[in-house]
Amino acid sequence: MVESQWRFGGNSKVIRAGAMTLRGVMDGVMKILDENDGRGVIHLSQGDPFSFPCYRTAAFVENAVSNALRCANFNSYSSTAGLSAARSAVAEYLSKDLPYNIASDDVFLTNGCTQALEAALTVLACPGANILLPRPGYPDYKARAAFAGLEVRHFDLVPENDWEVDLAAMEALGDENMVAIVIINPGNPCGNVFKYEHLKKIAETSRKMGILVIADEVYGHLTLGSNPFTPMGVFASIAPIITLGSLSKKWIVPGWRIGWLVLNELDGILTKHGIVDTIKGFFNISSDPVTFIQAALPEILLKTPTEFYDKIVNLFRKSADKCYKLTNDIPGISCPIKPQGCMFLMIKLDLSKLEGIKDDLDFCCKLAKEESVVLVPGEFLCQNL
Amino acid sequence: MVESQWRFGGNSKVIRAGAMTLRGVMDGVMKILDENDGRGVIHLSQGDPFSFPCYRTAAFVENAVSNALRCANFNSYSSTAGLSAARSAVAEYLSKDLPYNIASDDVFLTNGCTQALEAALTVLACPGANILLPRPGYPDYKARAAFAGLEVRHFDLVPENDWEVDLAAMEALGDENMVAIVIINPGNPCGNVFKYEHLKKIAETSRKMGILVIADEVYGHLTLGSNPFTPMGVFASIAPIITLGSLSKKWIVPGWRIGWLVLNELDGILTKHGIVDTIKGFFNISSDPVTFIQAALPEILLKTPTEFYDKIVNLFRKSADKCYKLTNDIPGISCPIKPQGCMFLMIKLDLSKLEGIKDDLDFCCKLAKEESVVLVPGEFLCQNL
Repeated sequence: MVESQWRFGGNSKVIRAGAMTLRGVMDGVMKILDENDGRGVIHLSQGDPFSFPCYRTAAFVENAVSNALRCANFNSYSSTAGLSAARSAVAEYLSKDLPYNIASDDVFLTNGCTQALEAALTVLACPGANILLPRPGYPDYKARAAFAGLEVRHFDLVPENDWEVDLAAMEALGDENMVAIVIINPGNPCGNVFKYEHLKKIAETSRKMGILVIADEVYGHLTLGSNPFTPMGVFASIAPIITLGSLSKKWIVPGWRIGWLVLNELDGILTKHGIVDTIKGFFNISSDPVTFIQAALPEILLKTPTEFYDKIVNLFRKSADKCYKLTNDIPGISCPIKPQGCMFLMIKLDLSKLEGIKDDLDFCCKLAKEESVVLVPGEFLCQNL
Repeated sequence: MVESQWRFGGNSKVIRAGAMTLRGVMDGVMKILDENDGRGVIHLSQGDPFSFPCYRTAAFVENAVSNALRCANFNSYSSTAGLSAARSAVAEYLSKDLPYNIASDDVFLTNGCTQALEAALTVLACPGANILLPRPGYPDYKARAAFAGLEVRHFDLVPENDWEVDLAAMEALGDENMVAIVIINPGNPCGNVFKYEHLKKIAETSRKMGILVIADEVYGHLTLGSNPFTPMGVFASIAPIITLGSLSKKWIVPGWRIGWLVLNELDGILTKHGIVDTIKGFFNISSDPVTFIQAALPEILLKTPTEFYDKIVNLFRKSADKCYKLTNDIPGISCPIKPQGCMFLMIKLDLSKLEGIKDDLDFCCKLAKEESVVLVPGEFLCQNL
């Protein structure tokens, strides 16, 4: 039988979306690494500090999961939205920072924040709809939007203004087909933390535009500077919010794949507009997070001692200070804005001082090849690649 | 602001697909349960025997996961296709039953078999493509195909013929847009096990039709009768196969959400037709299975003592025998074919003897309400609901 008689082929939408993700682009940079370089690779491209031994989660957190595994009550499938005790725990944990209480029915457990963002974008992807994404931003939003068939528009985060949203430009981009805006706070990749007043203005602008806010708070509470963390859900009386989060960053366990999608709304708008039923449909066709890890959530979310968080945030603060200082000591590169949160900093290249470097992709590739240090090209985060 | 100014709405494709899944239909049946019935609910609708205490995984298996968690080397993200040691372990485990060795590069780890089937159908969903699904069958294939935009055609499993595929009818359904056939063996929901010769004929017919075989072997090795389990991959020299599997059933840990998608092909057809790149793209945009559970796979897959499997299969055999006998003792219902594998049996209703019962959905709803016993309506499994 000749080869051409086989009738199947790959879905090109999947290939295109896969190439747009952080992993897709970093695959290219990683291929450049010199495998014979004995110094070992320094990965600075993902929000996963695990290769640095000081970043280890607490024994307390591991014990909670281990106990849930060992008690053998949680080897079964969970219900589609998650175990009821785990949903209640997320509701209670998030409600601590809000002027109202989240109901456990408004919590859906997810395979990390990756599945939470997949769910949020997929349920909103009606024919012709478009969505607003931040630039610079986390590239997987654009990839998932493209796959779901959501048209993407970008609003700028303004570095001169502490990476705040250009609200006038945001409003100017809106039209009758716009359904949502994505706000990542603390900010990946800019390392910024939005002030209360600015978040309120984002909610007000969203209300004026008739769109909901998808609030990616996977780095929630990881603040290093003077701006405290304000959850977007505080403004749920202004605009409906879908909050995304996970254990990954604050507890330094990204490989545990446990996150949440939470509805913050005070007047049933998300139910009335069919969003809640659509989210339930999404979880009916999707895989759940591991049941015994879900079962550990009440212990982890509600009983982790404050000292653990303080230690982690202090470690991140020290690392950020060091990176900021050292970066600015190197001729040709600089870090104009000290990171205020998250695990990232944005570096500015002065190409006039960097001999033989064409652009930031070229810089990242040569750095990977020559020094085995892996960074993400800024052009890619600006969605221009 | 009046409500109608909010511009977002739910993606109707998601709602439709969610309603087609086993969970979606069972939600309806479950609502009928009498919450005040003190006897407790008997769930017989899912391949998850966990609520019956005799079905517990081995301490050995729990230890493997617990050790991987406790060693703290596996809290990080894994690579998109999975940890290299875990992929090798799946390759070695599956190769034991094959006349060739699977390469670890041909193994992709998934969030249970649910994500494996999502991946397989999504990557094949080119515009205009169609796929062949078994009837009766596992409803989530139809749901995921509908969501991915794959047209569905059904071939019949013939009860008079031990639920074998009607090969002539299968071939007659084919056209130039058909890309794949799904074969579930051991069979969910019919409880059948295909013979070697029959599987070979399916592969030959697939080759003639130019389509690939998606072999759902999530119940692999769970055989109760005289037909031994033959993996479809044995026939990879005849037609390319994508094999789906997981720990869920054989190790009785469906809540651990760890499965695999494996390419069985001997001549690079799946690579040449872009399927491999598309699968890589799919995993770039999707969430991975938990890293520390992946890390336990070598121990679990390669070192579980035979006695554990024997014990489990004996338990299922005893349960099947009992269900078969008791079912046939009840007037008005019968089980014409003794289950040969899997965790299910198909029951036939004699409506002339069942007073006040309209059809099988009515039977299931009344059984749930009056006796708190949850079964799946057969019409739904025949894709007619």
